[in-house]
Amino acid sequence: MDERLLELEEQIFELIENRRFVQLKNVLSEMQPADIAEIFDEAKDKDIPVLFRILPKELAAEVFVEFDTDRQELLLNAFSDSELREVLDELFMDDAADIVDEMPATVAKRILKNTDANTRRMINQLLAYPDDSAGSIMTTEYIDLKRTMTVDEAFDKIRRVGLNTETIYTCYVIGSRRKLFGTISLRDLLLSGKDEIVGDLMDENVVYANTLDDKEEVAAMFDRYDMLALPVVDKEHRLVGIITVDDAIDVIQEEASEDIEKMAAILPSEKSYLKTGVFETFKARIPWLLLLMISATFTGAIISSFEARLAQCIALVAFIPMLMGTGGNSGSQTSVSVIRALSLGDIEFRDILRVIWKELRVAVIVGIVLGIINFIKLYFVDYLWLKTFDTGAELAEMATICVTLILVIIVAKILGAVLPIVAKRLGFDPAVMASPLVTTILDAVSLLIYFGIAAVLVLG
Amino acid sequence: MDERLLELEEQIFELIENRRFVQLKNVLSEMQPADIAEIFDEAKDKDIPVLFRILPKELAAEVFVEFDTDRQELLLNAFSDSELREVLDELFMDDAADIVDEMPATVAKRILKNTDANTRRMINQLLAYPDDSAGSIMTTEYIDLKRTMTVDEAFDKIRRVGLNTETIYTCYVIGSRRKLFGTISLRDLLLSGKDEIVGDLMDENVVYANTLDDKEEVAAMFDRYDMLALPVVDKEHRLVGIITVDDAIDVIQEEASEDIEKMAAILPSEKSYLKTGVFETFKARIPWLLLLMISATFTGAIISSFEARLAQCIALVAFIPMLMGTGGNSGSQTSVSVIRALSLGDIEFRDILRVIWKELRVAVIVGIVLGIINFIKLYFVDYLWLKTFDTGAELAEMATICVTLILVIIVAKILGAVLPIVAKRLGFDPAVMASPLVTTILDAVSLLIYFGIAAVLVLG
Repeated sequence: MDERLLELEEQIFELIENRRFVQLKNVLSEMQPADIAEIFDEAKDKDIPVLFRILPKELAAEVFVEFDTDRQELLLNAFSDSELREVLDELFMDDAADIVDEMPATVAKRILKNTDANTRRMINQLLAYPDDSAGSIMTTEYIDLKRTMTVDEAFDKIRRVGLNTETIYTCYVIGSRRKLFGTISLRDLLLSGKDEIVGDLMDENVVYANTLDDKEEVAAMFDRYDMLALPVVDKEHRLVGIITVDDAIDVIQEEASEDIEKMAAILPSEKSYLKTGVFETFKARIPWLLLLMISATFTGAIISSFEARLAQCIALVAFIPMLMGTGGNSGSQTSVSVIRALSLGDIEFRDILRVIWKELRVAVIVGIVLGIINFIKLYFVDYLWLKTFDTGAELAEMATICVTLILVIIVAKILGAVLPIVAKRLGFDPAVMASPLVTTILDAVSLLIYFGIAAVLVLG
Repeated sequence: MDERLLELEEQIFELIENRRFVQLKNVLSEMQPADIAEIFDEAKDKDIPVLFRILPKELAAEVFVEFDTDRQELLLNAFSDSELREVLDELFMDDAADIVDEMPATVAKRILKNTDANTRRMINQLLAYPDDSAGSIMTTEYIDLKRTMTVDEAFDKIRRVGLNTETIYTCYVIGSRRKLFGTISLRDLLLSGKDEIVGDLMDENVVYANTLDDKEEVAAMFDRYDMLALPVVDKEHRLVGIITVDDAIDVIQEEASEDIEKMAAILPSEKSYLKTGVFETFKARIPWLLLLMISATFTGAIISSFEARLAQCIALVAFIPMLMGTGGNSGSQTSVSVIRALSLGDIEFRDILRVIWKELRVAVIVGIVLGIINFIKLYFVDYLWLKTFDTGAELAEMATICVTLILVIIVAKILGAVLPIVAKRLGFDPAVMASPLVTTILDAVSLLIYFGIAAVLVLG
């Protein structure tokens, strides 16, 4: 929260303390829904219903949408049926559906009981779409026009229904059985003559989504085509709803958070950090930690199996963390870049060879540079100064370390590039191929390379 | 690219092959700029100018904006001055400024030479804003109204200048010396009577940005307040430009990519993955790898210093990777969650105690669960079955491993939570406190704890 908001919060809580509801109403009705919701979030549960009743009807509904599920449930339970209906009337269909979706059965039932048959049908229809589909984030309030309408008639319709649609800036031209023929922006309508015909003005090459398209891809279309709203059609190309840019932005943020969480070996969650309980957080983190801990024991097994020989040149043990660390970091640099490029649509499976070729060259340069720097450090610091090496095979040991380093980096970058692309091709989420998993695989690989070379150069 | 686009690409390249430019024009003029740009991207350099000249003027400009810098430079050099002027006339000020910004000096000069004095002044003004500021992403074409206007007069103005503004859906009400008084949406204008006064209809509590605000925070405001455009004012609260939602989305995507890259110890770059050259990629990745490699040698030093004792119970060495790995993963799970929450504004410095308290509880549960599972595995697999332990101090060794594991996880989660928050407080970018750095620190810490406990339980 910035200063401005913190001051407001203080002022508002003071007004609540002294029950100065008239002033409170004036202050609140000047504010943005998101700000009000954030401030109410800090208020005592028992105050919420009172505070909420102060708000003007439309603002109240907008604030309600901004609340998290718990607050919404609290309010819904405090509402009388008539209050409930007032709020529901102000909600857009997509928000109403989301709320019904998130509420416990009893509350959901009560909501549906208090909506008219038509709304109920709509909500149930929206709820029927899969969670990650375009249908699940679309709303059903939009302006549809007929091709035969004049610009003037179009404006009449917009004025008539405009107040109850989420956007009026793009209108949708439909024919019989709601088939989508084209779109026309309010801008074009405004800049055309009163008597021109919508059918002649409309843009027929429409960017649209199907109800079952992945919402992540749909959100990407907003980024790609700079749209304010996107029509959604069913299998028969009938217009069933629209998605507005604000909902697309939410999806973009969610998907970014999800990718980031998966990259860090966390099961993604919808809730914000502080809203997620300790046990929920635990459940989201333990599975990967467990899996990775167990797989790390293979690395241990590899070391054990070399135990006898390691005892002979214990000096080499000291460099295991450096080799593993550098391998892991090189690998995750690549995997993370590739995963992000995949989810931004910058690369696809067909680019796999270009990606490998690029990473190979990068890896060789990185490997040689780090290898040389490392050798210099080994020679002057560890050998001459610290005298870490004392097996009489100093140079062999140093060579082992540097050669391993170079090979590990090359393997790391190739694996880091291939694994996510292949994962996506196989229908898995590439994001899980990020750092932790790749690193664990690389740890084992690094050791095998290390001991393999050591066996030849030092012990052989 | 989806099938639809791949087919189009084939068809278009065929038309190029056979020089069927008339059909080509018809196909292209039905397409979205972003799609055209992506397909032209695959075309031969020598074809680009020809292809570009086919496009209708306005579409040409839109496609030009979608090109990457190299393609843009190629075209600008191929353009005659008159062609250049044609494209420039169609560009919005923010895009024009970006292009001038990215072109080599000679090309930039030529562009400015071919724009009228006014445009040149505007461009130079926009270029003067810092790269990450609101001013750098705003445009200067918007509709301003006077408070005294009637709705009818407002519509006249919108019709007059509407074609040359980036959005007409929000209008800005200004007074003398361009002071910003309020905003009014086209929707409200449309739903009001012809003779009503703008001053009475406008919304006076405006969400706005200052020219020097961080563009990341500005983009977040779009997400928070569901806006289509945001006015930007200077120190004197004079309206100097607007930011449109499509530019906000670009910033949101860039910032997410930047955070992800930093979390993976990569220096962020603006270019997309395949557009970044091998050497550029190398330069973006080597610094952190080098730093982390060097710091990893401290971990090595710690091992060396315990060498003598390690030789006595070499079995413990085998569990170093598992302990380090689990510590690193626990730490990055937390740091990444905290970093994301910070950049989404879900938590701030004042929440640091709540975060620590939450992570502490999570860490204890995670630690105990993993500790127990690990002990069972050690006892039955390593001790009874594999007989890894043979020092006669089996239980002490197993205890050492499990106690270390629990402590490491707790330390990891606390550090992972504190480092990013503190980094941000100190004005650094929290994202660099993610996995790699935290992991390297944790590697050293883990070993110290491990050997410390070993010294007491096993060797002591």
